[in-house]
Amino acid sequence: MAHGNGSTTLKHHDRQYKVIGTRPIRHDGADKVTGRAKYGADVQVSGMLYGYVLRSPIAHGKIVSIDTSDAEAYPGVSAVITGKDFPDVSDKIAELGEGVVNLRHLGANIMARDKVLYQGHPVAAVAAENIHIAEEAARLIKIEYEALPVVQDVLQAMEDDAPILNDDVRTVEFGEVINSEPTNIAKRFFYEQGDPDEAFKNCEVVVEREFRTSTVHQGYIEPHTSTALWHGDGRLTVWTSTQGIFTVRQQVAELLQIPITWIKVVPMEIGGGFGGKISVYEQPVAAMLSKKSGRPVKVTMNRTDVFQSTGPTPGSYIRVKMGADKSGKIVAADAYLAYEAGAYPGSPINPGCMCIFSCYDIPNSRVDGYDVCVNKPRTNAYRAPGSTNAAFAVEAVVDEICERLEMDRLDFRLKNAAREGTRRVDGVVYPRIGLVECLTAIKNSDHWNGPLEGPNRGRGIACGFWFNAGLKSSVTVHVNTDGRVTLVEGSTDIGGSRAALAMQLAETLGIPAEDVQPLVVDTDSVGYTDVTGGSRVTLTTGLAAYEAGIKIRELMCQRAAKIWECDVDDVRYHDNATITGPSGKSISFKDLASQIVKTGESISASASVNVPSSSNAFGVHCADVEVDPDTGKVTVLRYTVAQDAGTAIHPAYVEGQMQGGAAQGIGWALNEEYIYDSNGLLRNANYLDYRIPTCYDLPKIETIIVEVPNPDHPYGVRGVGEVPICPPPATLNGAIHDAVGVRMRALPMSPPRVLHELLKKDGE
Amino acid sequence: MAHGNGSTTLKHHDRQYKVIGTRPIRHDGADKVTGRAKYGADVQVSGMLYGYVLRSPIAHGKIVSIDTSDAEAYPGVSAVITGKDFPDVSDKIAELGEGVVNLRHLGANIMARDKVLYQGHPVAAVAAENIHIAEEAARLIKIEYEALPVVQDVLQAMEDDAPILNDDVRTVEFGEVINSEPTNIAKRFFYEQGDPDEAFKNCEVVVEREFRTSTVHQGYIEPHTSTALWHGDGRLTVWTSTQGIFTVRQQVAELLQIPITWIKVVPMEIGGGFGGKISVYEQPVAAMLSKKSGRPVKVTMNRTDVFQSTGPTPGSYIRVKMGADKSGKIVAADAYLAYEAGAYPGSPINPGCMCIFSCYDIPNSRVDGYDVCVNKPRTNAYRAPGSTNAAFAVEAVVDEICERLEMDRLDFRLKNAAREGTRRVDGVVYPRIGLVECLTAIKNSDHWNGPLEGPNRGRGIACGFWFNAGLKSSVTVHVNTDGRVTLVEGSTDIGGSRAALAMQLAETLGIPAEDVQPLVVDTDSVGYTDVTGGSRVTLTTGLAAYEAGIKIRELMCQRAAKIWECDVDDVRYHDNATITGPSGKSISFKDLASQIVKTGESISASASVNVPSSSNAFGVHCADVEVDPDTGKVTVLRYTVAQDAGTAIHPAYVEGQMQGGAAQGIGWALNEEYIYDSNGLLRNANYLDYRIPTCYDLPKIETIIVEVPNPDHPYGVRGVGEVPICPPPATLNGAIHDAVGVRMRALPMSPPRVLHELLKKDGE
Repeated sequence: MAHGNGSTTLKHHDRQYKVIGTRPIRHDGADKVTGRAKYGADVQVSGMLYGYVLRSPIAHGKIVSIDTSDAEAYPGVSAVITGKDFPDVSDKIAELGEGVVNLRHLGANIMARDKVLYQGHPVAAVAAENIHIAEEAARLIKIEYEALPVVQDVLQAMEDDAPILNDDVRTVEFGEVINSEPTNIAKRFFYEQGDPDEAFKNCEVVVEREFRTSTVHQGYIEPHTSTALWHGDGRLTVWTSTQGIFTVRQQVAELLQIPITWIKVVPMEIGGGFGGKISVYEQPVAAMLSKKSGRPVKVTMNRTDVFQSTGPTPGSYIRVKMGADKSGKIVAADAYLAYEAGAYPGSPINPGCMCIFSCYDIPNSRVDGYDVCVNKPRTNAYRAPGSTNAAFAVEAVVDEICERLEMDRLDFRLKNAAREGTRRVDGVVYPRIGLVECLTAIKNSDHWNGPLEGPNRGRGIACGFWFNAGLKSSVTVHVNTDGRVTLVEGSTDIGGSRAALAMQLAETLGIPAEDVQPLVVDTDSVGYTDVTGGSRVTLTTGLAAYEAGIKIRELMCQRAAKIWECDVDDVRYHDNATITGPSGKSISFKDLASQIVKTGESISASASVNVPSSSNAFGVHCADVEVDPDTGKVTVLRYTVAQDAGTAIHPAYVEGQMQGGAAQGIGWALNEEYIYDSNGLLRNANYLDYRIPTCYDLPKIETIIVEVPNPDHPYGVRGVGEVPICPPPATLNGAIHDAVGVRMRALPMSPPRVLHELLKKDGE
Repeated sequence: MAHGNGSTTLKHHDRQYKVIGTRPIRHDGADKVTGRAKYGADVQVSGMLYGYVLRSPIAHGKIVSIDTSDAEAYPGVSAVITGKDFPDVSDKIAELGEGVVNLRHLGANIMARDKVLYQGHPVAAVAAENIHIAEEAARLIKIEYEALPVVQDVLQAMEDDAPILNDDVRTVEFGEVINSEPTNIAKRFFYEQGDPDEAFKNCEVVVEREFRTSTVHQGYIEPHTSTALWHGDGRLTVWTSTQGIFTVRQQVAELLQIPITWIKVVPMEIGGGFGGKISVYEQPVAAMLSKKSGRPVKVTMNRTDVFQSTGPTPGSYIRVKMGADKSGKIVAADAYLAYEAGAYPGSPINPGCMCIFSCYDIPNSRVDGYDVCVNKPRTNAYRAPGSTNAAFAVEAVVDEICERLEMDRLDFRLKNAAREGTRRVDGVVYPRIGLVECLTAIKNSDHWNGPLEGPNRGRGIACGFWFNAGLKSSVTVHVNTDGRVTLVEGSTDIGGSRAALAMQLAETLGIPAEDVQPLVVDTDSVGYTDVTGGSRVTLTTGLAAYEAGIKIRELMCQRAAKIWECDVDDVRYHDNATITGPSGKSISFKDLASQIVKTGESISASASVNVPSSSNAFGVHCADVEVDPDTGKVTVLRYTVAQDAGTAIHPAYVEGQMQGGAAQGIGWALNEEYIYDSNGLLRNANYLDYRIPTCYDLPKIETIIVEVPNPDHPYGVRGVGEVPICPPPATLNGAIHDAVGVRMRALPMSPPRVLHELLKKDGE
């Protein structure tokens, strides 16, 4: 079914819905387009001070001394803090949510104590009557550094004689410490199935290549902003723009060593996150400034702060070796991945390892991955973290195998595609998934079958995989006397999830989407809810909304039975939001709702769900490019995304995710990179020099929503937000090769790099 | 059991509690004493404008014309509104919560459309960049009034030829219209039991007296303040200081004709309410200014606005006739009450009627009550509304009967006191109540038995009665991994209810009060909860906290069973917050809580309760005074309050309520009154001229908490907040008579009035 220009939906099911699949106006839309939505920087609290964070001017060094006396004496200054003001958490390992976090590292990243590990590393902060006073006073803080050698390359950092960033880091492999000396290699992951060494021996074709990707940033519009009020009895309120209010609550509690129950985190509207607004940065700083000053304090980053000090996604080194037999079946694969962790351990190397071969059914495979500290900001998630780097590498090797076997790139992928029953290298066996359907959708598309004429033009395709995390979500539903319902959620809305959740509740109750008022509330006002990330919200919080809806149906039946003085077993809730009882009794949801206050206690229902397993999302992209042979500039002519959404709750926002993810992937592919000088200083920490794509750089991105329902969700939902960023670099690499015959092995495929490869090829 | 100076608790039960009855620091205390609590006026929203309300300079008149053009043109002005900007709700009668509200009257009180009915009646409002611009611009609004005759005396307003305030008012008696012409008499209530006319004939003593009480104000510290943001799609957020967030939501919804689901009401800390912050005033004005300007708008009253335009409690005329037989048994009673409604119908005449004889067991009684419109601000509740006026009248008559029968005032009251089984004039039959125990407590007290020497000194006692409303409350409890729990409530905290509710939950769970974090949240974040008023919160919201606690105990047992892999029936939750299972398994609440995230979905429970019936509270006060015979000034020498608290959850806050209520009652008794000139203009709309008592005017108020548990509450709670205001005027009147031999029949018993009576007596 086509909808609008360049948007198609292909359903592999025959489910019929009333609300799901429609395109109501998003509930938070009007506020955003009229400027009335309130973001982090809009927070104002009476008596509020402004906080300025002083950051390290060097990339690696010891802090010899800090003298804050002049800053403290500066008129208008209320508090000056350094790392010493924070509780010492250096011996604490905290369980934060599902995972384990090294508080020493998290704490040292918030504000350095003894060493600075990257340019922009916070070293002190000042709270003052206004931001100008705070900044002036911060300049008066005297810090003596002892500079240390800088290492920013992931392979150099792994060498024995590399400068060591963290004395306490040892290599950990699945919980076991495997070396005894300080190292930059924080973690190793190793997965294997079958016997790849043996299998490679029998291959018709074996291709082995090395790849590099650069550090890139999520590039959200809104810089990080938080305001904190330390109450008189040690309690704390934090207003912040975040992907996870409960994550902020827990991290702040651990770092400041106060009970989580004492912290209220109030979510503001978020101007983009993409994974970069999960960890805390300025929240504990604002809190500590508030504690010391006794006043509420707001800390807002500027764009340079965001680039220098918040978590980009890692640059990486990846080596991939794959082998196929004569029939075109991939029989062996081997990958080595080293991801930059940045200053402290924690790159997405493990998902990188789990994703790299996930699109293919490969009987013999091995993955070896390393998490490596370098003198860059601590990395963070960015839409399908770790998977885009991996897809760039593996898909390039697949393309080369196709060339060697003279097989069609799409047919080869179809032949080898993972499907229900395929066992992944990490041992997971897929349930029903939609990769084949996505490949088929591209194969049958106008785009794939359309013409591509002219010199230096080419077409590429690539696959991508990402998980749907499950985890925990809670919602509460209140039925109001006007017949509408309030849906209270703990999932901050970074991509339209208010609409997607409201629609699932509306479907469950049989009422219009507009009659649901979805609301993201603070940590005190809803049950525990994990982070908005991992493509889990529409899936898992949606499940909670569904379960709460089922409870509301029951409660409405009970109330009708009370009013009708009949047995509740004789009352039924129908999908058209009508409640019927004995002797032909019938009442609409709206009419029954209007009687709630008069007939008893209020009708509300909460649901908390815990989804321990993860689900799966696949996408296949197709791109046409033209390469300027004189400059190496790549122009994207046409771009199509096919993706298995399971069930598209609100197709327009699914399309938006597909388009947005592709756009970011295209930026990552062609232009984006952190450019460091020889001292490890970032030279392009602004949007003039760090080139993200604008509307002038992109064609209209066409979408094909493929619906292969998720068997583990009542409405078949799959998360859609992340996987569209995975295929673009690989897709464009294939298209560049198709256009001008060079295979790129590093990101970004920027004009100088492409030109370099073109010149090298001409020189051959 | 004595606690501290002048505080005693007398328990008429043998229940043992761990948390209940202790005195932990209130959870909201630190913020309030360190200035970090955020009140209505602290709200700041980016882009916020300031609203100024223009008010009528005359007490009664037609609005001939309003010209706002100059104000609209004034630089810095964003919106000007008049009554015409509001939806026309003149034909709407809304069911608001439990009651019915005439929206025409509520709407016209918010902003006049055609007539002004009192000085200070809002007629227009301006939103501008700052309050000074708004006020300047408001002065440019040209309004032509046609003045009408003013009537402010309740009896004059009932006369046939009185100026009529509202053309649409007819007298309604229990739902029936009983006259056809426009009138100021909006309602009549009539109750009767037995045959009082016949009974009076056989009395040994009959006393009949007339009484007057003046209009008085609640005198809360914080003037009304609200900020509203009208969102782009018609949704509305209101930050306000109120006793009832759901009441505000519903009243605003009805007045602005938008769905209640679209309105979020966020409660700020409240600087006193006492009944005066239930109705909306500035909230719809701020909302309409925001709608028109497209910006958030804050409207803050000043003190004069509060006096002139918000609801005081009514002045009244009361005639009481009572008769007793030779033995000192009251056998007949008759009362006529006329209460000022202010500009629009709605005085607390009905509770006045129900309360007037409620302390006594009188077989034959009759009450006839009238709600009468006068040219004063629309009245509102004030701590036990209607009961203080009534107690002043009835207790004075009782004192006179005692004098005539030469009986001790306390023994007479004990003999006639209402007790379990007593039938009230409105038909209610009391369950177990504690009036006799309160009278006995005073009878046995140091104070009553202590000396009182010196000239012009006297002692008085009086009883008071007030209801405990039930209504609806909701709470949600979240168990956090630090072993503490969050208690989310919809009851705004005007008198320490956060502590009282947290303690009931703590008792239920067996954990310390400090481990409960009580939080008052917005209307979207908790189930429907009725207003904080009617002495209902500790009682009814406490019941909800108890029920949620019971659910949490069950959920914790279920989780333990899951972890121990045993049957939940083998798991028990003990009152010491330990959970035990088979084979000697045992885990503390705190340890189990720390495992919640790892072992399943989050543990939360909500409870919504609906308590349709009301409960009862009684108090007996004793006062010593000295009257200055030269000036008539009354000095309170000693004051003791005995009150049945059922069970005092937090004795310090019960004592605080008893002391605070008594202090307000003393002010009402001796000094407070609205002073109007002949044009109906208020001459003392400020705290210099409207005399509330200060600490210089009051002795330490001694308290005796009497605990006769409420049989309808799991912890025996009775509401304690209102009844302490009822006895003071009557108590002091008795003491004045005891001191100088005059019986006052009007409030306030201010120096000129007392002197007048003294001179009259001397002249006799």
